[in-house]
Amino acid sequence: MSAPVDISYLGPSGTFTEQAVLALVEGQTASTSPAPTVRAALDDVRAGRARSAVVPFENSVEGSVSATLDGLIHGSPLVIVREVEVSVRFAVVARPGAQLSDIKRLATHPHAAAQTRQWIAHHIPLAQVMPEASTAGAAELVAAGQYDAAIASELAGVRHGLVIVADDIADRAGAVTRFVQVQQPGPPEAMTGADNTTLVAYLHENGPGALLEILEQFATRGVDLRRLESRPTGEGLGEYCFAIDADAHIDEPRMAEALTGLHRTSSKVLFLGSYPRADGRVTPAPQGADDASYRAASDWVQSLRGGNG
Amino acid sequence: MSAPVDISYLGPSGTFTEQAVLALVEGQTASTSPAPTVRAALDDVRAGRARSAVVPFENSVEGSVSATLDGLIHGSPLVIVREVEVSVRFAVVARPGAQLSDIKRLATHPHAAAQTRQWIAHHIPLAQVMPEASTAGAAELVAAGQYDAAIASELAGVRHGLVIVADDIADRAGAVTRFVQVQQPGPPEAMTGADNTTLVAYLHENGPGALLEILEQFATRGVDLRRLESRPTGEGLGEYCFAIDADAHIDEPRMAEALTGLHRTSSKVLFLGSYPRADGRVTPAPQGADDASYRAASDWVQSLRGGNG
Amino acid sequence: MSAPVDISYLGPSGTFTEQAVLALVEGQTASTSPAPTVRAALDDVRAGRARSAVVPFENSVEGSVSATLDGLIHGSPLVIVREVEVSVRFAVVARPGAQLSDIKRLATHPHAAAQTRQWIAHHIPLAQVMPEASTAGAAELVAAGQYDAAIASELAGVRHGLVIVADDIADRAGAVTRFVQVQQPGPPEAMTGADNTTLVAYLHENGPGALLEILEQFATRGVDLRRLESRPTGEGLGEYCFAIDADAHIDEPRMAEALTGLHRTSSKVLFLGSYPRADGRVTPAPQGADDASYRAASDWVQSLRGGNG
Amino acid sequence: MSAPVDISYLGPSGTFTEQAVLALVEGQTASTSPAPTVRAALDDVRAGRARSAVVPFENSVEGSVSATLDGLIHGSPLVIVREVEVSVRFAVVARPGAQLSDIKRLATHPHAAAQTRQWIAHHIPLAQVMPEASTAGAAELVAAGQYDAAIASELAGVRHGLVIVADDIADRAGAVTRFVQVQQPGPPEAMTGADNTTLVAYLHENGPGALLEILEQFATRGVDLRRLESRPTGEGLGEYCFAIDADAHIDEPRMAEALTGLHRTSSKVLFLGSYPRADGRVTPAPQGADDASYRAASDWVQSLRGGNG
Repeated sequence: MSAPVDISYLGPSGTFTEQAVLALVEGQTASTSPAPTVRAALDDVRAGRARSAVVPFENSVEGSVSATLDGLIHGSPLVIVREVEVSVRFAVVARPGAQLSDIKRLATHPHAAAQTRQWIAHHIPLAQVMPEASTAGAAELVAAGQYDAAIASELAGVRHGLVIVADDIADRAGAVTRFVQVQQPGPPEAMTGADNTTLVAYLHENGPGALLEILEQFATRGVDLRRLESRPTGEGLGEYCFAIDADAHIDEPRMAEALTGLHRTSSKVLFLGSYPRADGRVTPAPQGADDASYRAASDWVQSLRGGNG
Repeated sequence: MSAPVDISYLGPSGTFTEQAVLALVEGQTASTSPAPTVRAALDDVRAGRARSAVVPFENSVEGSVSATLDGLIHGSPLVIVREVEVSVRFAVVARPGAQLSDIKRLATHPHAAAQTRQWIAHHIPLAQVMPEASTAGAAELVAAGQYDAAIASELAGVRHGLVIVADDIADRAGAVTRFVQVQQPGPPEAMTGADNTTLVAYLHENGPGALLEILEQFATRGVDLRRLESRPTGEGLGEYCFAIDADAHIDEPRMAEALTGLHRTSSKVLFLGSYPRADGRVTPAPQGADDASYRAASDWVQSLRGGNG
Repeated sequence: MSAPVDISYLGPSGTFTEQAVLALVEGQTASTSPAPTVRAALDDVRAGRARSAVVPFENSVEGSVSATLDGLIHGSPLVIVREVEVSVRFAVVARPGAQLSDIKRLATHPHAAAQTRQWIAHHIPLAQVMPEASTAGAAELVAAGQYDAAIASELAGVRHGLVIVADDIADRAGAVTRFVQVQQPGPPEAMTGADNTTLVAYLHENGPGALLEILEQFATRGVDLRRLESRPTGEGLGEYCFAIDADAHIDEPRMAEALTGLHRTSSKVLFLGSYPRADGRVTPAPQGADDASYRAASDWVQSLRGGNG
Repeated sequence: MSAPVDISYLGPSGTFTEQAVLALVEGQTASTSPAPTVRAALDDVRAGRARSAVVPFENSVEGSVSATLDGLIHGSPLVIVREVEVSVRFAVVARPGAQLSDIKRLATHPHAAAQTRQWIAHHIPLAQVMPEASTAGAAELVAAGQYDAAIASELAGVRHGLVIVADDIADRAGAVTRFVQVQQPGPPEAMTGADNTTLVAYLHENGPGALLEILEQFATRGVDLRRLESRPTGEGLGEYCFAIDADAHIDEPRMAEALTGLHRTSSKVLFLGSYPRADGRVTPAPQGADDASYRAASDWVQSLRGGNG
């Protein structure tokens, strides 16, 4: 078996995921390899073909990337070790010499089509939108002559020798996608003070009471949530699990205690990693929830228990 | 302008949505018309081209249908008046005479591909999966000779003169999709005792505290939630609204009071209808939350206020 | 039957309660009459012998005055219409010519004895403390020669021709007692913007869950609590009701709705009046809980219900 | 200094407290000594004059015994090691030969007077009730000829050579008082499975939010509360602390963790002991809150932290 690559990422080359890879590598040397699907990238890590995988996790317009969450949930355990945010900027790319008015068949990924629907309706209302598996793949097929144009990143256009016919065409400006780097489980990254912990919790029974109980496991320990997203478990309509990003590191006592609370009160809880926040935002522990308060409280209870501890 | 059709539905003909239309019509005469997208179907109602629209709302494997929720949220108000649940059963359909082993190019919608991934990997690992805009459209292209086979409903296969090569191939059996029938706003359907109210609530500020407050608006009035799903507002990572299905009818005092509570404490709340549950399940109001308790409580407070009321 | 007096108060003359009466009357003419016990004062109102009663309600050192709460709970309904706070300042009073060192038998009410225990132990450690039914009664018995000195208010000393041997002797300075004026039920006092509502709520079942539910009935309507005090119901150890002072007036929608919520979810709730706060402190309704927000929310729900309202 | 007695109890001899002492000793030999006040009994333990003190803690009619709670709160730390419940049964006792109709001056403790008020008003309406410091002391003064009769326990009557003129005269039958045995701090009593922990918690700031937070510290750990009683701190009207009895032992992880939570989030918390319940009632930990669940959760978190723990 050949040596594993450093990073397997959701390909093809030229997508926003490759931009995320470049941002994570930060100019260092790393071997990379595109994978055809999110699951394939994750399975490269599981099978030892890659040391890590980079995949999209959450989009400010579309929400969680289902394939990533499902890919992390199902299969042997993996954990997130880094995250990065990439601005999503769509362009119309075509072969040199093309005009906007020439476009009859416009290829792109359905998500990109959804995010540029109004622009298309206004500027090229007669163009037929053709679904492809990726924006970069759509650009490649334009280069091959199968379509007139693609909606893709500038990077993808450049890679395939295309030109930018229109730029920054998203109906809603400022869309951002959050990508994560994933590895085999191991001791978590060291605390930085601006950390995130990702979890998936399954309720014992459904209903607002059960979710309230989960939220209180964090609130009573002074841990704020950055994201809470429901996701069907696949067991039937109305059966959900909750993907959670919490503003603390497992090495902080408040986070460790919240995790034990979740473990006791959920039917299942998956730990998907503690790692530095991409935005570096420090959110200090509230009064009484910092490490010193936990230590003092623990020492006090220990002293009360005397020889019984 | 021609007379409006009774139902505009997410087409093309032969999809699970058409099965939902047939179930909702229940043998009565109704004029129907397929629309190319969920938004087009909804806009047919908004523009007066259709009296109602039937669109998918929630899937037991994939969760909420983003296009429907977004289509209801953005644009002039519409309300849900009926719901129906349809079992999702996928088949491999091909031209007469085809064998499973012959399939090289297999067309389907990406969601159908996701839900049959393991079956494909096991039975036809060499087939190339081609994304199409709908399962019924994929079947039509098989009939036209563009692909070897499609993953679609039996109904779609039959409509296009295809045969069933393999049936019930979903990786996870028992998938169900919930469809809704949507109209222009008007007085809600009469209460049946087994009713549902659909809402979208926007938080004033994010964080678990804000969501806890919303959940308590229901809990203190004795209203159970059937579904709670977060959805990005599109304003940036970490900005969510919550789509809610609640187990009560707006004509019940507990639901009316919970709605006023939401209106006061949310930054925005959309009412998307009170209507009979598809499963007919009656969930009686808990102790103290039935109509008689509300009336008695209101009379008591009125009597205390004397002439001040 | 003779004409009722304006105010029956907990006597005898010369106690802090009479000071409260003077503060409530504010220089206006009012006929007053001391009653031997709190219950006797309340029953004077119930029987039509007095138009109102003034009794102690809460003390900053001792807490609620049990006799008053019990007297309001048991018997025909009465409501609070005014409150006043009186500083409690204890003096040692004796016959003219007496010295501190002469005091052998010192009479007072047990509560006054409790609040001056350290002072007594330090200054007149050999004095024997004799329990009497009131501080003013103790002063009267000093005048009659039965005891050497009394712990009482200056007013009581003056009334009985005694002199102040030591003043302001409470172990903890700044004690305050809150007195209330009580009447037969009727429409509540007009809102002032700085109002209080007094209630007693009985739980359906005991335990922290039941109390949490009661507290949430206020929290979800944006009503702050000024006081929450448990009190045994007398039905057995561990059976409690809760005396509550809430920062709002029954004519505010948030308070009216909280009251209906309590009525629905408690086994019993007693309304003991809405009336102006003695300290005049205005606590504005939080965001979304003011009258305008309630009206807008109610109008919105009404508009949704269309003809069904 | 002489050897300490085993038990200093709230005297005089012949009160319900002495009955509690007899029940706690259960026939074993123990030296006992009556103290004039609750505080004196507690201070005997603090000063080493007694190995333990027995004092009343809570009454089913009057609620908490303020003097005991205050005596435990103020002064060097003491802890409860046992509790016992005694039925409170009042009798009218008088010198041999006396008749009910002869009673003109009736002595008793004010609490006893309050609990027999209706009986007195009905049977001896003309009797003058004289307040005394204890029911047993009142009986002694009857024997000495100072009063005609006393309301006291049968035991007190017997001790002073009096006869029972009327028995079981409480207005509300079934009153019970809970007594506690108190010692210098030390390792808590061993767990029995039916245990109680007594605490006093001071809020950082007042208001229902702060109390809700305290209640949730117990609820999220699966600890039920048996009693919750507010008590003024003496710092001013509206300033309270909360006396709490919780259904668990400090050696259970759920109780230990709830205590650390209280320590972190309260401004002060006093631990007043873990000890066997008098009624022996076992209330098993709810699902997920038993020791095994805590251990499993803690092990899981430890495994996730790997070498970081």
